[in-house]
Amino acid sequence: MDRDHEQGRKLTHFDAAGHAHMVDVSAKEDTRREALAAGRITMSAEAFRLVRSGGMAKGDVLGVARLAGIMAAKRVDQLIPLAHPLAIRKAEIDFELDDDRHAIDIVARVGITDKTGVEMEALTAVAIAALTIYDMCKAVDKGMEISAIRLLEKTGGKSGRYQRA
Amino acid sequence: MDRDHEQGRKLTHFDAAGHAHMVDVSAKEDTRREALAAGRITMSAEAFRLVRSGGMAKGDVLGVARLAGIMAAKRVDQLIPLAHPLAIRKAEIDFELDDDRHAIDIVARVGITDKTGVEMEALTAVAIAALTIYDMCKAVDKGMEISAIRLLEKTGGKSGRYQRA
Amino acid sequence: MDRDHEQGRKLTHFDAAGHAHMVDVSAKEDTRREALAAGRITMSAEAFRLVRSGGMAKGDVLGVARLAGIMAAKRVDQLIPLAHPLAIRKAEIDFELDDDRHAIDIVARVGITDKTGVEMEALTAVAIAALTIYDMCKAVDKGMEISAIRLLEKTGGKSGRYQRA
Amino acid sequence: MDRDHEQGRKLTHFDAAGHAHMVDVSAKEDTRREALAAGRITMSAEAFRLVRSGGMAKGDVLGVARLAGIMAAKRVDQLIPLAHPLAIRKAEIDFELDDDRHAIDIVARVGITDKTGVEMEALTAVAIAALTIYDMCKAVDKGMEISAIRLLEKTGGKSGRYQRA
Amino acid sequence: MDRDHEQGRKLTHFDAAGHAHMVDVSAKEDTRREALAAGRITMSAEAFRLVRSGGMAKGDVLGVARLAGIMAAKRVDQLIPLAHPLAIRKAEIDFELDDDRHAIDIVARVGITDKTGVEMEALTAVAIAALTIYDMCKAVDKGMEISAIRLLEKTGGKSGRYQRA
Amino acid sequence: MDRDHEQGRKLTHFDAAGHAHMVDVSAKEDTRREALAAGRITMSAEAFRLVRSGGMAKGDVLGVARLAGIMAAKRVDQLIPLAHPLAIRKAEIDFELDDDRHAIDIVARVGITDKTGVEMEALTAVAIAALTIYDMCKAVDKGMEISAIRLLEKTGGKSGRYQRA
Repeated sequence: MDRDHEQGRKLTHFDAAGHAHMVDVSAKEDTRREALAAGRITMSAEAFRLVRSGGMAKGDVLGVARLAGIMAAKRVDQLIPLAHPLAIRKAEIDFELDDDRHAIDIVARVGITDKTGVEMEALTAVAIAALTIYDMCKAVDKGMEISAIRLLEKTGGKSGRYQRA
Repeated sequence: MDRDHEQGRKLTHFDAAGHAHMVDVSAKEDTRREALAAGRITMSAEAFRLVRSGGMAKGDVLGVARLAGIMAAKRVDQLIPLAHPLAIRKAEIDFELDDDRHAIDIVARVGITDKTGVEMEALTAVAIAALTIYDMCKAVDKGMEISAIRLLEKTGGKSGRYQRA
Repeated sequence: MDRDHEQGRKLTHFDAAGHAHMVDVSAKEDTRREALAAGRITMSAEAFRLVRSGGMAKGDVLGVARLAGIMAAKRVDQLIPLAHPLAIRKAEIDFELDDDRHAIDIVARVGITDKTGVEMEALTAVAIAALTIYDMCKAVDKGMEISAIRLLEKTGGKSGRYQRA
Repeated sequence: MDRDHEQGRKLTHFDAAGHAHMVDVSAKEDTRREALAAGRITMSAEAFRLVRSGGMAKGDVLGVARLAGIMAAKRVDQLIPLAHPLAIRKAEIDFELDDDRHAIDIVARVGITDKTGVEMEALTAVAIAALTIYDMCKAVDKGMEISAIRLLEKTGGKSGRYQRA
Repeated sequence: MDRDHEQGRKLTHFDAAGHAHMVDVSAKEDTRREALAAGRITMSAEAFRLVRSGGMAKGDVLGVARLAGIMAAKRVDQLIPLAHPLAIRKAEIDFELDDDRHAIDIVARVGITDKTGVEMEALTAVAIAALTIYDMCKAVDKGMEISAIRLLEKTGGKSGRYQRA
Repeated sequence: MDRDHEQGRKLTHFDAAGHAHMVDVSAKEDTRREALAAGRITMSAEAFRLVRSGGMAKGDVLGVARLAGIMAAKRVDQLIPLAHPLAIRKAEIDFELDDDRHAIDIVARVGITDKTGVEMEALTAVAIAALTIYDMCKAVDKGMEISAIRLLEKTGGKSGRYQRA
């Protein structure tokens, strides 16, 4: 716990000289780890209506975004410079439509049994799913905004469970 | 303009049957196009202080995030399923530190001379730069939040200039 | 035409010494080029029924396969060793369900304005779409077979139109 | 076995709501798994003769195709949307020339010790090897056809050995 | 010329504030550009003998290395952080065996018609070809050394021809 | 030991028929393995001075090169055709500036616990870091030379410790 505490006080991706490195995780334990991340994209009434009706065969925006998010979770190590390559074991993305705010809430859950966590995988899945929705709706609305990308929960590993307040 | 208007009324990434496709841009003109996108990551006072001091050789978080964002702009077509492959000609990312809110504001500018715009490249650069900052600071603060990813401005192309209100 | 004829008589991806190379296409003209390729996957009655019903919200196998094919068309140069990198401008995939044979016919159309053709892009899109269908149905039927992957038509370029007999 | 049976009755890549996901394989056992897949490419007499003579230093078409297939087996998770990332341990590809039909038979064998099988890796290796042969011979014959891509055998895992009838 | 001179005096990949960026090349002219780079790998007598005999069907080390180099030239923009994505038009690699020194000399030539040069593509092709030779011979000799990776010649572009002294 | 000896006498990446394959490593033991590789880039006095001053905020060439090298170590299996995909656990790169020779010495250390070693990862990290330095300085000096890329040390695995003489 002392060590955990100490680790919390510095940026682990840099060594003592301030040089970026991929930190050694060999000594960590293989445990089941999961991460749950969320985000939101807010759009115009018209764009929102088109996404909503997509489920009814006019074009499945959310189906495309879901795949994009899952695929992105598999290549986090190629996007985030110091992230470890990880063979994720599970990835799923859910969307919830908020009719009042014309917003789509995105939740990604990623799981693995390994020596390091999958927060970045879940967060990246959310971000790329949101960007894909933007891409597919931008002919209708360029003013969409992606927000509230955050880690909701993290389990497994030495530091135990993290749950967003 | 009529056609522009009409185009604005549907999701161009789907055909009449609702099937996703990569829309044909061959007939569009090669023009100089630029896109400017922005976003923000908000963090704890402690994480913010570590990022800020990074410029003074304790570990250059923003330098790493800048590179990650630029590199991501080059592979948008592999992340966003229906995005066209594009040989971008310019990419730059700036950060501004907001001491009051413990936030880092990210702005990406991408340029090209081609038949289609680079909004997705600029937005993706912002998102990946923000996620990289998250990755590098997560040992100190897991509660960071990425927000306000949006297109600020877009020039070039038939539809002309877009500027966020 | 003589040169065309002669070119037809050897494997252009090898030089005089038999060494593989990426052949120089600089001198070729930029013309509009399209390629149309097709293929088929045949499966058990049960798997076929599940794919068919997928359109009705039990899981959209063909929607996933369509995206996989389109995305593969964008990275042909990373899969086929001597293929030129190409910024394709259009890609679409259609499926036709053959109830009698429990087969799905796949057709991909890819377009570009460039110095070299997109046959490989269309053929690869078909192959990866078929493999994705296999992946999604393999829990139900491991005996599926992918067949008849072929070029149907090719337009543009010096050699003119090719149409499969 | 009941569960196996039941699993066989639905498309495992979709959840109860019909949404695509990367299915959780964490609970599966690490066992040695192998997959053997095959396919064929049929071509004109002239193209076939050129491939055959390639072994004799005019240009080693099959050597290039073998490498392309092996490399493709390593990136299946980037091609097939819901495939798990896997660190394959063995990959080999053999070709057999059928002089009577001007066809090349392709067989790929892939091995791993992991929680999920490598059918997709073997099938993708076959498909990309065949496409590479197409690419290298297309200046001589555009009418080639790729067929009979199928799983021959699969060992390891809870469901045990699969052998094509 | 003044501007050229001035450009030569600073690191163009950084802006005035010292921040890395992908420099804007939009204003440059499309000209035919080629780059010729070379390198060498020196090895033990035994390893050298095995590579040499490979041409005689015991395993074509140089054929594999040639493909690896060509493929690497196509993905320079994903390896070198600030390199522009480029659709190269030609790539070839030659090897020369130096029996006296047990060395293999590698020469790569890459061509394009674009706004920026292909030095990095040629140099990367050489480096990856050399590394591939290392990989294939390392069971026999771990002491191999790669050296003399350098640009031999560069043509096209405003700065004209560069030829190594 | 006999087998080890024998293995040392042939190129393991080829089978008995001389065909390239990804050799089966399943039977090997999971052990902690590390590799240490080095290389050097030599440049003009002016380029060297600019790199050196970069640490003082005119543009951090070595910081960019460090990241490029680390990221390349993560994708060796996509660059070196017969290399196994590996989830490396640690990667770090150090630079030493040699004022007398205007050279930068690069050392990469990569670690893993797996069935096969990470020599190629460490060597590739060195090569790509050097190429990145070249890229960033080439506006000032095209005559830079990359040399002495070699394995310094390797630990773990059946063959035990290798240390360069």
